Amino acid sequence: MDRLKQQIRFIIEVDKLKSIIRQNYLADGSRKEDDADHSWHLALMCAILAEYANEKIDLLKTMTMLLIHDLVEIDAGDTYAYDTTGADLSKRERELAAAERIFNLLPEDQAIWLRSLWDEFEENRTAEAKFASALDRLQPFLLNSASDGKSWKEHGVTASQVLKRNKETPEGSKTLWEYQYELLKQEIKKGNLIDE
Amino acid sequence: MDRLKQQIRFIIEVDKLKSIIRQNYLADGSRKEDDADHSWHLALMCAILAEYANEKIDLLKTMTMLLIHDLVEIDAGDTYAYDTTGADLSKRERELAAAERIFNLLPEDQAIWLRSLWDEFEENRTAEAKFASALDRLQPFLLNSASDGKSWKEHGVTASQVLKRNKETPEGSKTLWEYQYELLKQEIKKGNLIDE
Repeated sequence: MDRLKQQIRFIIEVDKLKSIIRQNYLADGSRKEDDADHSWHLALMCAILAEYANEKIDLLKTMTMLLIHDLVEIDAGDTYAYDTTGADLSKRERELAAAERIFNLLPEDQAIWLRSLWDEFEENRTAEAKFASALDRLQPFLLNSASDGKSWKEHGVTASQVLKRNKETPEGSKTLWEYQYELLKQEIKKGNLIDE
Repeated sequence: MDRLKQQIRFIIEVDKLKSIIRQNYLADGSRKEDDADHSWHLALMCAILAEYANEKIDLLKTMTMLLIHDLVEIDAGDTYAYDTTGADLSKRERELAAAERIFNLLPEDQAIWLRSLWDEFEENRTAEAKFASALDRLQPFLLNSASDGKSWKEHGVTASQVLKRNKETPEGSKTLWEYQYELLKQEIKKGNLIDE
């Protein structure tokens, strides 16, 4: 039972992901979403949109990657995509320390497995990581668009910031980027995104 | 682009799952969890605990099932496991109508795929459905136990109600049920669950 007890401790520990609050709002603008909400949405989007990945992806691997990709934020906190103060070297250091602590709560074989999935996501080199990363950028974009740019407006986000943030999105999915780019032009017209 | 637009509409619609609030609290007792939090937790638990399924399961299928198993609650609402008033025939009718509406937002092939996964979960006959269902019962139990029985106490839940609710859990996983049963005895001793 020792192995199972270790796994259950991890399962209780990661419950804290539900208390990490992101900057973007739900589609209806009622509240900011939490990291577990976000991860659920991404895994489901992955199942539905996998056909648009540039290269054929291993779906189970990509969904599992998305379910765990933000666990490090339990210790390191969420850094807003358009915040320049938190997105520094110390963020990377804090996330590495968090990965070391959190994944190692699991039995060794599973710690290695999930840690390697997280490393793969961070390195953004494989087809799975690139598609996961494209979804991770598309999802808050869709919610911002649905909520009339609520968090973009709060932070004075510009179209060029969004373009820079999505520089690598086409590497995961050309089709999804084309869709997102059309939407971006509409968001500028609506005044939800600042166009300098 | 019509197919993609349809898929995106579904993705925005299911965002509402984040606003369906369950009766159980997070492990730290700070707030009740939402259905998307819960579904995320279950899919991750499935990846970690699959080795304890009585029969070998298709992991991708079971995780996808868990990600979508509560979508009908967007229309039908959450019915508390130990509430006798909502758990009636009308609940089933409301959920069927919700499944009809929500899954059919997707292109036909994907609507059929996710609807059949939901039907399979509801029928609780396959190894995947039985394991998914065992996790769906274990997860709130773990959170109740971690939060010192907070929602059990609020609703005056008895050990025999929990036993009845978990009647079929051993069909999904004998090992997980053994673990949960030991925990249940501790929860009674602590006074978190009423033992008549």
